[in-house]
Amino acid sequence: MIDQIAAIPLFQGLPRQQHEDLAMIVVDQIFKRGQTIFSEGDEGSGFYVVISGRVKVFKLSPEGKEQIFHILGPGEPFGEAAVFAGENFPAYAEALAESRVFFFPRPAFLDLIKKNPSLALNMLAVLSRRLRKFAALVEDLSLKEVPGRLAAYLLFLSERKKGNEELELDVSKNQLASLLGTIPETLSRILARMTRERLIKSSGQRRIRILDRKGLEELAGGEKRLP
Amino acid sequence: MIDQIAAIPLFQGLPRQQHEDLAMIVVDQIFKRGQTIFSEGDEGSGFYVVISGRVKVFKLSPEGKEQIFHILGPGEPFGEAAVFAGENFPAYAEALAESRVFFFPRPAFLDLIKKNPSLALNMLAVLSRRLRKFAALVEDLSLKEVPGRLAAYLLFLSERKKGNEELELDVSKNQLASLLGTIPETLSRILARMTRERLIKSSGQRRIRILDRKGLEELAGGEKRLP
Repeated sequence: MIDQIAAIPLFQGLPRQQHEDLAMIVVDQIFKRGQTIFSEGDEGSGFYVVISGRVKVFKLSPEGKEQIFHILGPGEPFGEAAVFAGENFPAYAEALAESRVFFFPRPAFLDLIKKNPSLALNMLAVLSRRLRKFAALVEDLSLKEVPGRLAAYLLFLSERKKGNEELELDVSKNQLASLLGTIPETLSRILARMTRERLIKSSGQRRIRILDRKGLEELAGGEKRLP
Repeated sequence: MIDQIAAIPLFQGLPRQQHEDLAMIVVDQIFKRGQTIFSEGDEGSGFYVVISGRVKVFKLSPEGKEQIFHILGPGEPFGEAAVFAGENFPAYAEALAESRVFFFPRPAFLDLIKKNPSLALNMLAVLSRRLRKFAALVEDLSLKEVPGRLAAYLLFLSERKKGNEELELDVSKNQLASLLGTIPETLSRILARMTRERLIKSSGQRRIRILDRKGLEELAGGEKRLP
């Protein structure tokens, strides 16, 4: 049990004592295929980690249509953000196959953290490191695709203004980042690179001037990559 | 000050009271271009968030060569994973331009968390949500590129075995994921899709049998995408 807890990414690298503390409060559960684990609006009474099997997290539209958010496999937590924030579950969770899940009840987990705040700090460290690794991955992957999509978007804005080179973004940089499938930090770095390469000039929060239309076209067409 | 704290992704969505608590302990600092913020091995006396400017985090090789890990801009934290874990700083941090950073001293931050464990829980919720969003982005971006790279890798393994269709992975799935530039969860889903499409058959942890060599070749060559 302790070894299985130690292998969960959310808890990886915690001191052994904290794995033991978690093993004391965990509830080992099996759900059959199709069985509901929790429903939207249920009290966030604890969070779950998939040990084996597969769990789907989804919402129902007013017409009863399923919108699947995630399909989770071994090692992945679910319900944890709501439980940490003290909120109700914002969606449904259902086993897609017979699944073994570990359930960590909120009150016992809160007690652990009150007695030993270093558990919370260590979990923050774990999530921070994972986040940093993911951010680096997003950036790596984004730098291949996003500059081209951004170039295409800027050319589209210019066309809409009949070829004008002075553009005003019609969305915030946060929205633009998510439109292009990346994070704001990476978008900022791409804009900085485009500026350094004299493709564009950025002035103010939302104003961009096209300096090298041909360069942007090559980038958008995949003929060139941003150095 | 409180509004600037509220805008930091690490603290976004915390209750106002917790932003006020953080504002009480923050130290507002300016570093000049080229100034060292901390050195490798320094005690992790607190963590930092860039407010303006740019900060590089790097290590020095025994020969004194710089290896840059991250270049951080506004909103991005640094040193926090070490500070949460109670470790020394594992790298150097230096301002690349005049930079304003917020410093959160560890002892005062620990006091806050001890008095009010919900701050730690809320930060766990924030990081969890960001992590989930990043994981979805990594998956989105990976599903375009990784299946092709994985197909190429499987064909390479087969070639090395003189065209044998029974393969044994020579690395763990975690290592393979990072080799292919993704996370283990996404790799598992790609393997499941390849199995569903009858391109491969997975048997056991490391054994894979090629069922459709032509399909893998098309995937590797970018002529086809995984549905």
